[in-house]
Amino acid sequence: MQFKLSQRILKPDFQGEFTASILAAAASPDIISFAGGLPNPVSFPIPEMEAATQKVLETNGVIALQYSSTAGWPALRRWIAKRYETMGVYGVEADDIIVTNGSQQALAMIGAAMLDAGDKVLVEDPTYLVALQSFHVFDPVVVPVAINADGIDCEKLAEAVKANPDAKFMYVIPNFQNPTGLSYSQEVHDKVVEIFKGTNILLLEDNPYRELRFAGTATNSFGAELGEQCCMLGTFSKIVTPGMRIGWICVRNRELRAKLLGYKATADLHTNIFSQMVLAQYLADNDVDAHIEKTKALYKQKAEWMMACMRKYLPAGVTFTPTEGGMFLWATLPEGITAVELYRKGLEKGVAICPGDPFYETERNVRTFRINYSNSSDEVIEKGIRILGEVCEELLNQ
Amino acid sequence: MQFKLSQRILKPDFQGEFTASILAAAASPDIISFAGGLPNPVSFPIPEMEAATQKVLETNGVIALQYSSTAGWPALRRWIAKRYETMGVYGVEADDIIVTNGSQQALAMIGAAMLDAGDKVLVEDPTYLVALQSFHVFDPVVVPVAINADGIDCEKLAEAVKANPDAKFMYVIPNFQNPTGLSYSQEVHDKVVEIFKGTNILLLEDNPYRELRFAGTATNSFGAELGEQCCMLGTFSKIVTPGMRIGWICVRNRELRAKLLGYKATADLHTNIFSQMVLAQYLADNDVDAHIEKTKALYKQKAEWMMACMRKYLPAGVTFTPTEGGMFLWATLPEGITAVELYRKGLEKGVAICPGDPFYETERNVRTFRINYSNSSDEVIEKGIRILGEVCEELLNQ
Repeated sequence: MQFKLSQRILKPDFQGEFTASILAAAASPDIISFAGGLPNPVSFPIPEMEAATQKVLETNGVIALQYSSTAGWPALRRWIAKRYETMGVYGVEADDIIVTNGSQQALAMIGAAMLDAGDKVLVEDPTYLVALQSFHVFDPVVVPVAINADGIDCEKLAEAVKANPDAKFMYVIPNFQNPTGLSYSQEVHDKVVEIFKGTNILLLEDNPYRELRFAGTATNSFGAELGEQCCMLGTFSKIVTPGMRIGWICVRNRELRAKLLGYKATADLHTNIFSQMVLAQYLADNDVDAHIEKTKALYKQKAEWMMACMRKYLPAGVTFTPTEGGMFLWATLPEGITAVELYRKGLEKGVAICPGDPFYETERNVRTFRINYSNSSDEVIEKGIRILGEVCEELLNQ
Repeated sequence: MQFKLSQRILKPDFQGEFTASILAAAASPDIISFAGGLPNPVSFPIPEMEAATQKVLETNGVIALQYSSTAGWPALRRWIAKRYETMGVYGVEADDIIVTNGSQQALAMIGAAMLDAGDKVLVEDPTYLVALQSFHVFDPVVVPVAINADGIDCEKLAEAVKANPDAKFMYVIPNFQNPTGLSYSQEVHDKVVEIFKGTNILLLEDNPYRELRFAGTATNSFGAELGEQCCMLGTFSKIVTPGMRIGWICVRNRELRAKLLGYKATADLHTNIFSQMVLAQYLADNDVDAHIEKTKALYKQKAEWMMACMRKYLPAGVTFTPTEGGMFLWATLPEGITAVELYRKGLEKGVAICPGDPFYETERNVRTFRINYSNSSDEVIEKGIRILGEVCEELLNQ
């Protein structure tokens, strides 16, 4: 049987083979995978979750298992709204929050609510590959803007905004960006605010890693200065659990909020209320900040260990930017080797990295690659980096 | 701030005010609501779910809280695949099942994978309103085909298929259809198979209520005869819990399956794995059929009680089709009153019904309405129907 599919779904994946093969490699038990972005299980509060579940089912079982409202569980939305004060954003209300199936769903919702074919979207270059994929469903023109070690390239951003005043939104990840692990400096942050103020372009801020800073100082959320011009995405995936798929969008513009709610109702009625209530109970009964501190301490040690191994085992020509948080390092190969070569040869020797290519809208055969440190033991990190070093040498000597 | 939204989201809801106002009425504690479609909490196995949760977190906590695969939890998919044998479909494999956020998400996935603007979709007339809304996101031409007391009108269906050989799919709910509560007879079922065989039109079978039959005999799933030409949607919402938002699509065509998986990965990565595992554990440790029998016994009693009250309190001119299962009755008002009038006047007196209008693609000011019996006490049913009877009399005497 050959069904007639939509043009949308028949478009070749502009990222080629990468996504599927990287996920497959990450799932294989025989491969040392630095390719994915899995949190370390130390960040999963299992016994606390068990206690929270028991409490929810015993006191509110009927509500937890019944249909619920599209916006999400009020107690959870209140917690999220309040949390914005730690990011310098005051006055957020529970009603500004829509709970989504991971922040990934919020990306799809914004795409659906804002993009017609041919509309322009600005993104960091490189950027989160599944965000790119999710925008491409709606056939926009994606305008990539280079990112530097201190955040988006403000000169290029100003040009891009000037050249595309009708852009619908810009997607940014200001803290420990995926894939680069880079963060916006205060200076870059302030310039970005200046560039966007007075335009009609929505700033879509994704912030999955901000809570994972183990050094330095975080900038505030862009919502502090840009108000309703900034929609803020968040997630519990990196601080409590990704398995429950609970993220959110903070949207203070009323018209947009109403449209997003309508779209979400059509897409899946509402997010799993049982898990929303369990999570809210967990947050009420536990010190989540202490829990995050534990995760951060581990990630700091892992990051430092991986950087030490990279300095020890990789050829001198391989450079990387030291990180202050998040889950990834971003490295650059010397001229003459591409990241895809390292990926393919590495895989043959049992080690997967994530080549930069699928994170770029247009560039291919790049020399940059992403490497994850959150979910491997110290032994595995050392072994994997040692093998990668050998592969680099081989490639250099070809 | 006035953002530039997409054409898609700015389209006026072709169902007007209904959906939002019906949901609001159903949520109000002061209103007797027969408008919604909430399962009775008796169908929620709360202590069993607590035991299942504990077991999952204690034995497999890390997997339950970690990222997971897009297709879903293998044990749950195996259970679903096997369940198709009770619907006359053999040989379904776990790999044919994609777990979704309620079957609602599967509707959105099929729309995305198959519909370009202007493509034709056949539907029963009337049909599930959120299915209509979800297809309309993709701007198709929706071709409604009348439904009779024994299922789709086969003469009209044959004409519609002949007139629209390029239709992408037909959406059907063969058991206790929403909103009408009607089921396909074996004769109608067989004719439908005959009409679709040899065409290139996908039959999208939604079956949320099939397990709730308390009288008569169910026809098999269309997948038994149509093979991969039939995609089958299912859900745990009506037999275990809607709060967890766990449904599925059984898709045996490989190309379509790959595309649906890709789309789902972009939409939200995967369905809540914690809840999938809890549900699978519940199904492994409990006799779900015995549990469903309890629910059915209750619904049978409720349906019979509501029908008795309708016969007693509603004016003779109000007719309805006796049901053999599901959660709804479908009634027709005498000439001279519309269902929207009954809805508005009923709401003023504290009783909400669901007028037929939003379930029709084009018809408005109809005399049909949907009335739910699953989630009200006997006292509330009697009181609500008595008030509706008084409202009908008032409207007739206007």
